[in-house]
Amino acid sequence: MPLYRAPTKDMQFLLHDVFSISAADILGYRELDPEFTNAIITEAGKLATEVLHPLNKIGDQEGCQLNDGVATTPTGFKDAFDQLKAGGWTSLDMPSEFGGQNIPYVIHTAVSEIFSAANQSLAMYQALTHGAAFAILTHGSEEQKQTYLPPMISCNWTGTMNLTEPHCGTDLGLIRTQAIRQSNDTYKITGQKIFISSGEHDLAENIIHLVLARISNAPKGIKGVSLFIVPKILPKEDGTLGSRNTVRCDKIEKKMGIHGNSTCVMNYDNATGYLLGEPHKGMRAMFTMMNEARLGVGLQGYAQAEVAYQYAVDYAKERLQGRDITGTKAPEDAPDPIIVHPDVRRSLMDQKSFIEGARAFVLWGATLIDRSHRLNDTESDGLISLLTPVIKGFLTDQGHAMTIQAQQIFGGHGYIEEWGMSQFVRDARITMIYEGANGVQALDLVGRKLAQDGGKNMKTFLRLIDDFINKNTNEESQFLQDCIDPLSTASKHLKLAVQSFHEKAPKHPYFSLAGSSDFMHLFGHVCLGFMWAKIATAAQATLNDDTTDIAFYNSKLVTARYYMTRCLAATSMHLKRIQSGEDLIMALSAFEL
Amino acid sequence: MPLYRAPTKDMQFLLHDVFSISAADILGYRELDPEFTNAIITEAGKLATEVLHPLNKIGDQEGCQLNDGVATTPTGFKDAFDQLKAGGWTSLDMPSEFGGQNIPYVIHTAVSEIFSAANQSLAMYQALTHGAAFAILTHGSEEQKQTYLPPMISCNWTGTMNLTEPHCGTDLGLIRTQAIRQSNDTYKITGQKIFISSGEHDLAENIIHLVLARISNAPKGIKGVSLFIVPKILPKEDGTLGSRNTVRCDKIEKKMGIHGNSTCVMNYDNATGYLLGEPHKGMRAMFTMMNEARLGVGLQGYAQAEVAYQYAVDYAKERLQGRDITGTKAPEDAPDPIIVHPDVRRSLMDQKSFIEGARAFVLWGATLIDRSHRLNDTESDGLISLLTPVIKGFLTDQGHAMTIQAQQIFGGHGYIEEWGMSQFVRDARITMIYEGANGVQALDLVGRKLAQDGGKNMKTFLRLIDDFINKNTNEESQFLQDCIDPLSTASKHLKLAVQSFHEKAPKHPYFSLAGSSDFMHLFGHVCLGFMWAKIATAAQATLNDDTTDIAFYNSKLVTARYYMTRCLAATSMHLKRIQSGEDLIMALSAFEL
Repeated sequence: MPLYRAPTKDMQFLLHDVFSISAADILGYRELDPEFTNAIITEAGKLATEVLHPLNKIGDQEGCQLNDGVATTPTGFKDAFDQLKAGGWTSLDMPSEFGGQNIPYVIHTAVSEIFSAANQSLAMYQALTHGAAFAILTHGSEEQKQTYLPPMISCNWTGTMNLTEPHCGTDLGLIRTQAIRQSNDTYKITGQKIFISSGEHDLAENIIHLVLARISNAPKGIKGVSLFIVPKILPKEDGTLGSRNTVRCDKIEKKMGIHGNSTCVMNYDNATGYLLGEPHKGMRAMFTMMNEARLGVGLQGYAQAEVAYQYAVDYAKERLQGRDITGTKAPEDAPDPIIVHPDVRRSLMDQKSFIEGARAFVLWGATLIDRSHRLNDTESDGLISLLTPVIKGFLTDQGHAMTIQAQQIFGGHGYIEEWGMSQFVRDARITMIYEGANGVQALDLVGRKLAQDGGKNMKTFLRLIDDFINKNTNEESQFLQDCIDPLSTASKHLKLAVQSFHEKAPKHPYFSLAGSSDFMHLFGHVCLGFMWAKIATAAQATLNDDTTDIAFYNSKLVTARYYMTRCLAATSMHLKRIQSGEDLIMALSAFEL
Repeated sequence: MPLYRAPTKDMQFLLHDVFSISAADILGYRELDPEFTNAIITEAGKLATEVLHPLNKIGDQEGCQLNDGVATTPTGFKDAFDQLKAGGWTSLDMPSEFGGQNIPYVIHTAVSEIFSAANQSLAMYQALTHGAAFAILTHGSEEQKQTYLPPMISCNWTGTMNLTEPHCGTDLGLIRTQAIRQSNDTYKITGQKIFISSGEHDLAENIIHLVLARISNAPKGIKGVSLFIVPKILPKEDGTLGSRNTVRCDKIEKKMGIHGNSTCVMNYDNATGYLLGEPHKGMRAMFTMMNEARLGVGLQGYAQAEVAYQYAVDYAKERLQGRDITGTKAPEDAPDPIIVHPDVRRSLMDQKSFIEGARAFVLWGATLIDRSHRLNDTESDGLISLLTPVIKGFLTDQGHAMTIQAQQIFGGHGYIEEWGMSQFVRDARITMIYEGANGVQALDLVGRKLAQDGGKNMKTFLRLIDDFINKNTNEESQFLQDCIDPLSTASKHLKLAVQSFHEKAPKHPYFSLAGSSDFMHLFGHVCLGFMWAKIATAAQATLNDDTTDIAFYNSKLVTARYYMTRCLAATSMHLKRIQSGEDLIMALSAFEL
């Protein structure tokens, strides 16, 4: 059975050589020296390899079961979840006053990749709780924080997000779930919510549902939606568990993947709820955690690509089939391992260059979030706000495509469930959909984020790229030719795309929407190109400084050039499509499709 | 429940307006007038909609069961298969002397798309039989033809192909299954075969396995492999069923998709077999049916895209979510159907333009096969030989990608099995793998097909494009600008790629292999561009001739321009990747991946 191995070395390289985190002037970053981060990543990796990953296939095969409203998770999940809790893995970046460890978000992010790669379904029970706790931390009253945060940070209680209803997903202004205010300032919540991840399960003693609902006489549409805390079991004044609330799981969906995570239809029948934040401002409360939540999903996309890649590399080294065209590499008469074949190598390099670039992108994004939260740096906050739909949409589209490439390496065996590759593809597929389908990410990017603050954030991003290019243009190295030129070309394409949006917007309202998906991908390639340029610079600097690990740093230079040369070749195609406009897209009537 | 509807009108348009089949000087084509083909396609469509498609999801949910070597297909499959047989649908293009109807292959192809779209798993039982019967027709003795063809053509007996063994798939020279010659000129076959589609089931009274095996003392490798007929039940001299042969299904694989088709591990234990064709020439016998078999798989790829597209269009018209950016299209306060959103439209146009172009490509390929078989036209034979890996590899890669796009339209519902989209994605996935994984198609294309007959076939293809361009360059219509220029550019990219292979081949053996997948996709785009140019020409001619169905023909012009403008934008990217060569792909050692 193949194993998942945490990419400890690559993460350490990114954190310290590329992003120099312990030298950064951010609260808590000084303590993140290489020994400390190595210890955390290594320990997380051990848990992932030994405990979480062996349960991954079991989770897929068994799924979650529902009997009379009681849900059971797959064999071993409870024990593994207990180990996550016992190791303090659920509290890393949470504030110490509520039982957290106050470690920067960037480290939480590295650990999240490891857990998600090892077992996405299991990791989700914690990830959702983290999101819900963060919402309470940001918008809750002091009493709510005291009541809910300690048990949620320890994951003795888990959390959920209840947005979607059968008739509304993206368009949450259509929400029908009702909240009726009671004399004691609580609310009675009634309605049905669907697609509720971790909605009901047996891993925790209580489940805290955050539910979007409409208070009676609320304004119409999205401006009349409020957020409520609806516990499965109502806590008593002393924080111990009281009576069962009238919320119930009526169905666990049969899905394409993430079978180990219970996706629930939840029914609220006059359930007791507590307003979280201000009335009618539920969407704002939800959106404060959107950047993190979407970064977390982008991370899941490439995390599945990482574990699938590891399996594919192992298989390509072991599977003997055909011969190297330049002469057999294996002993007389025996076939060669398929890794000798250039097209197999091409596929593996596509995967490797994407995954490592994506990891850099997400870790960089996490440092921006730390800068925003821990330094109140508004420029970083604006930047991560702009980049969030790119991280979510581009990394999950590409991440899923890479799991398919990894599966393809296995030939027929890739299609047989036993070998595990199908699960990676099926699990990764959800990342393109949930937390805002990727088409909605693209819409958010061109419809809101580009114009935010008068387009300031896009200018900031382009300035970062230009500064990097200017700084490195005078280098008389091969690096100039191999990295700077393609990055410069790609970023020029990005600028031209933005320019065409500006020019067309006044008279062509559909123009930018028609180009939105291509723009998201064009932008994503520029971001990964930028990351690879930074990686190559750091690797070259270490090589210049003299290192014994030449092969490792050289491999970064090679992979950077691979991405720059082959993957950035896509940007001109995306630009052409964007510039072709909306006419061809909108020409046929719906009736003619 | 959404329905599948056969694309009768589009098929008729392609067959008669674009390819003018009834005017073609090919034996049997004269009879293919529009009424006749319409009757066939309409009837096939009725069976597909009413009988095959309603069983599609049942097949996915129930799968095939194995009990003590006896396999059971899903509920309803036997009855539906009986209706396929009773309607004569299994015998369309087979010779009349063995019970067939002798109808040209191009019509068999159109019908195959319909059945495959409606229920790929069920259609496979017949498709495999068709392939096996064709091998017997081409290489069998008169006695073998008399014995096996009538019951196989009627599908009273079905057929299989046994190539793969646990340690060898692509590299069939490694085959270990043994054939020992007996005194009565029969053989005793012993070995294990895996991934045998339709290997055991309850749809037919007998199953005829075609098995690749190695006769004792055969030459090593691929030149020592022979093909054998190994019936499940041995026919007696009078053709009736005799004793059970020692072949047994030991396992039905649990797969990602096509659950309704039994994928079997077959064990041959001194089973009686009959040599088909010459000893040690089994591969040649297999390869005579390769063009058709691979065209059939390319067809499956876009057929799944077609049915997924139909579901997606229906959903996009019904799902109310969000508002048109230029003002609500639906009545006051109600949300608009999501088909108003440009990115949804973009996705649907991607799908539509691919599917219709792919259909034209495959039908054109089928006419080349008819020309080859019915006219002994060597140029057509060479051309289809060249195009086969493109049809198989490009259409299944893209077809699968389109099922993912269709699934994405459904948002969260796309991930729930109940809605059916997951199945299309999972079923389509196999088409990229079986009948030669797509990497092997790309290898076949650049490693064998390009150089075949001194590169004559590629020259023929390029000449067809050039002739078309030259003929239409003098047209003073918008068509020139919209179709001819992009096609001309794309075919120039194709020529440059071929040229770079020629130049680099002598000193860079990896060069063309490193670019093989990109070349296959570049080639595929040029083929679909060519098809769209032909479609647009035909549509324009009909519009010039005056027609009452202006919307239909206009939609072809719009969709042609869409493909030319947006999809052909990929060719320069593929060319760049090809020209970047093998260095970056092969630079890292296997150890560093």
